[in-house]
Amino acid sequence: MPFQISSQLSYGVSCPSTALFSIHALTTSNQKILEEKLLIQPDLTFEEFPLETGQNRYIRLETGTVPQVDLSYTATVETQPQIISRDEIRSTPVAHLDRSALPYLFPSRYCQSDRLWRLASKLFGNLAHPLDQVIAIADWIYENIDYISGATDAATSAFDTVTQRAGVCRDFAHLGIALCRALSIPARYFTGYACLLQPQDFHACFEACIGNRWFVFDATRLAPLNGLVRIATGRDAADASIATIFGGMFLQSMMVNSISQDFQPLYRQDLDGQAVLLDP
Amino acid sequence: MPFQISSQLSYGVSCPSTALFSIHALTTSNQKILEEKLLIQPDLTFEEFPLETGQNRYIRLETGTVPQVDLSYTATVETQPQIISRDEIRSTPVAHLDRSALPYLFPSRYCQSDRLWRLASKLFGNLAHPLDQVIAIADWIYENIDYISGATDAATSAFDTVTQRAGVCRDFAHLGIALCRALSIPARYFTGYACLLQPQDFHACFEACIGNRWFVFDATRLAPLNGLVRIATGRDAADASIATIFGGMFLQSMMVNSISQDFQPLYRQDLDGQAVLLDP
Amino acid sequence: MPFQISSQLSYGVSCPSTALFSIHALTTSNQKILEEKLLIQPDLTFEEFPLETGQNRYIRLETGTVPQVDLSYTATVETQPQIISRDEIRSTPVAHLDRSALPYLFPSRYCQSDRLWRLASKLFGNLAHPLDQVIAIADWIYENIDYISGATDAATSAFDTVTQRAGVCRDFAHLGIALCRALSIPARYFTGYACLLQPQDFHACFEACIGNRWFVFDATRLAPLNGLVRIATGRDAADASIATIFGGMFLQSMMVNSISQDFQPLYRQDLDGQAVLLDP
Amino acid sequence: MPFQISSQLSYGVSCPSTALFSIHALTTSNQKILEEKLLIQPDLTFEEFPLETGQNRYIRLETGTVPQVDLSYTATVETQPQIISRDEIRSTPVAHLDRSALPYLFPSRYCQSDRLWRLASKLFGNLAHPLDQVIAIADWIYENIDYISGATDAATSAFDTVTQRAGVCRDFAHLGIALCRALSIPARYFTGYACLLQPQDFHACFEACIGNRWFVFDATRLAPLNGLVRIATGRDAADASIATIFGGMFLQSMMVNSISQDFQPLYRQDLDGQAVLLDP
Repeated sequence: MPFQISSQLSYGVSCPSTALFSIHALTTSNQKILEEKLLIQPDLTFEEFPLETGQNRYIRLETGTVPQVDLSYTATVETQPQIISRDEIRSTPVAHLDRSALPYLFPSRYCQSDRLWRLASKLFGNLAHPLDQVIAIADWIYENIDYISGATDAATSAFDTVTQRAGVCRDFAHLGIALCRALSIPARYFTGYACLLQPQDFHACFEACIGNRWFVFDATRLAPLNGLVRIATGRDAADASIATIFGGMFLQSMMVNSISQDFQPLYRQDLDGQAVLLDP
Repeated sequence: MPFQISSQLSYGVSCPSTALFSIHALTTSNQKILEEKLLIQPDLTFEEFPLETGQNRYIRLETGTVPQVDLSYTATVETQPQIISRDEIRSTPVAHLDRSALPYLFPSRYCQSDRLWRLASKLFGNLAHPLDQVIAIADWIYENIDYISGATDAATSAFDTVTQRAGVCRDFAHLGIALCRALSIPARYFTGYACLLQPQDFHACFEACIGNRWFVFDATRLAPLNGLVRIATGRDAADASIATIFGGMFLQSMMVNSISQDFQPLYRQDLDGQAVLLDP
Repeated sequence: MPFQISSQLSYGVSCPSTALFSIHALTTSNQKILEEKLLIQPDLTFEEFPLETGQNRYIRLETGTVPQVDLSYTATVETQPQIISRDEIRSTPVAHLDRSALPYLFPSRYCQSDRLWRLASKLFGNLAHPLDQVIAIADWIYENIDYISGATDAATSAFDTVTQRAGVCRDFAHLGIALCRALSIPARYFTGYACLLQPQDFHACFEACIGNRWFVFDATRLAPLNGLVRIATGRDAADASIATIFGGMFLQSMMVNSISQDFQPLYRQDLDGQAVLLDP
Repeated sequence: MPFQISSQLSYGVSCPSTALFSIHALTTSNQKILEEKLLIQPDLTFEEFPLETGQNRYIRLETGTVPQVDLSYTATVETQPQIISRDEIRSTPVAHLDRSALPYLFPSRYCQSDRLWRLASKLFGNLAHPLDQVIAIADWIYENIDYISGATDAATSAFDTVTQRAGVCRDFAHLGIALCRALSIPARYFTGYACLLQPQDFHACFEACIGNRWFVFDATRLAPLNGLVRIATGRDAADASIATIFGGMFLQSMMVNSISQDFQPLYRQDLDGQAVLLDP
């Protein structure tokens, strides 16, 4: 079930700039890159490396004095999402959490979990199992927040979304993360390519750490969970932004695509208490 | 059913100051002052007048160089709260609202109704009658917000309380007002003396304008609605503060009391769809 | 020096709606309407009245089922702005403020003066005379805030603008008001027609009460102070909005104009410590 | 010039809890621990490890059912702070920043640099060298923010402090970090022991990355820069908190101390354009 993924980004450049891009698929234990190609025009030098803020393959690129930069990335990626039944998912107290998961308990720029703990306790505190809590969180967001393009901007955080009740995938993910952390469940931001997402775009959702495994949840219900190709994870969009620009670069066009033959999509309603694990 | 109300406030004065106090009972069509007495020590000159921001009897007092100011107010006040059955309460569209009610549709310092309309529509938009909406608002606040002294401060607004889920009577009232206005129901802040409130203190709740009459609601459920003696109304606590100090005055002690013989308290649970009107 | 003012507003109507419009010139002691005409198409019934939240001439209009509403207002208005020299402007302590000015000391939706008092004291507390303080406030805003269309939205308040440092006339006025009130100087929001404003639009600025007279200040420096025709005043834009819509009406086009023959514009730099009084 | 550092923390425990503590001195190239001792009473098991969110030595401790936990940490630590002259400090564009510094350009929970860039540009954009910018940032904070215990709480962020103009060392550090990042200068939060700090307490300040070296700045001017012993660094207080509690533990008492014989303190005013490097 390999995915053909691609993205084309075109930027106008008004002054010499440096950009960080995070558009590559990751290589993980369950995600293999069969082939990939990145084309940058004009032929600028760049370097690729991970940042320690999560999982990612950033590229850093200097524009120099060119007036325009075009990126074209294509890859064929195979993933092995696993569906785990509820019985196999244990609860882990903070005392036994993997150390690597602990930072994902702390509040971050867009996920002010410290200010949402009473809300989270009231809404989800009656559920005993963290899996049930996270499922309930994603369902609550789906049911209570309207997906509206343009309703929010780059400064919008989970604290705003609780009240304003509208946003896009980024906002849905931030709110999910903040509510999980408020319940002492580690949670992180996921960006990726999403097969069958309509319209095609980069997608954001979130992973929650339950029983020391990271399960993926999409409160928007817009993307099949088994059709995701991971680009990056981080604490929130500040860590896993598609593009971070220093200088003067302006997005002129963007095309994203992800297709797969014989793909059998798996949505929230197909899971019935099971959870999806992208990487073990 | 007259109420014996009283309040004693003592302030230390660190520099010559001007204070506005709003602690007098109002005279309204349904609220009569049988007797009252205000004693200020030392014997400072002051003036009493209403501000046009609502209903009130402010006194303005200059301390000069005295180190201490004590206010003692006592009154006997008779009220005639009316219990109106749901059948007699009509809905009024904005087009036919009394002009005097229109300003209470606008957002104010602590009641940012402009940012809560989607929340209000989602929670209460399915109810057809504004009385049902306001009852549901007060019930929702009671059920979802914790009454916790010290959880909030003078800067806390309805926008915060939606997420932080804790507050005192002032915060409960602000949230009720903001949610009403977000549904195009005029709403205003009410401060008063409250018989059987435990512990005794000044109380805040809110009035909503339905069918061009102002009904009173207390989302804290701490005070019987027929035991309220009106001090002031306004758009929010900015208009109807008990004390507004310009200079250096520090509250040292405060005692508030309201008692009545033969008082039959009427709480939320006694109403069953009826609403309480303090003034017609 | 009469001004020919006009405004045309066209709205699409998606459902039966009620609107409040505030586009008429006011009649005041120094502002006389020589002639005026309001044309609403189609010929809908409406009523005109003031709201007690400030000075204004609101009209309330019901659309019924029409798909489109066009308003056209034209007037010839004579004003007599006065230029008052600094020597004639006294300071008035809160104890001697006109009662009608006191509400303009309180914080409001977009002017959270309660949260800005330390900032205001630090920036302007060293100036002894309130006129110098208000001039310094308007100058500081001009020098520190960028005028950028689209940088803010209807939820932006003075608290945001302090940090975000960008906005439009509405934001400049809100910040001026908040800083004045934080210094115990009453201040209110002013909307009007503005001769020589480029591009022509409704304009917002603010009035501060010094020595119990209301002087006008424009921190944007975009409009000559003696070319203003008053539409409304209020505590902030919540009180003095050009249009408040209940229902579904969408602005399709707006044209505003104000011209005068032989008009001698008076800008900030022409004043040299004097202040402009629109009404005594 | 070794420092004798110590801290004693006593917690009441109301239910079985897990705590993360960050009170150990770090071992770095310029900071050597000559001896140290941690005593926990009762004798609970705990583990020590670093989190990848910065530099730190967290301990994780489970209380079980004990009613009280006391921690006592003492150490002798030698540091070698370097004073670097302005001439030796180069500017590094983002394109040549060490990769490890890049995450410290991103906004975080308490340092919303994305919302402060216009403010930072206006205040400090005219300075060409990043060292001058950071010195000016620390000076501006010192001059414009009041150090007031209790003025802020755990939710206060740099965005608030810009306007509220009061705070403690944590708030001063957050604002410094946010302003640096807004100018594309990586900046991180520093917690440590501080010799001659009055009164003795844990201290927070910030490090900025200039020329790919991390220099330390203390906008409070309360602690000599050469008297700091590093406990942890991170993006902000969310990463480098002294104690993070999951469960019910309540601080009952805290004593912190740092002394050194023959210590020659170095304050801001002694530096004259030089900068202090704790670690190379």
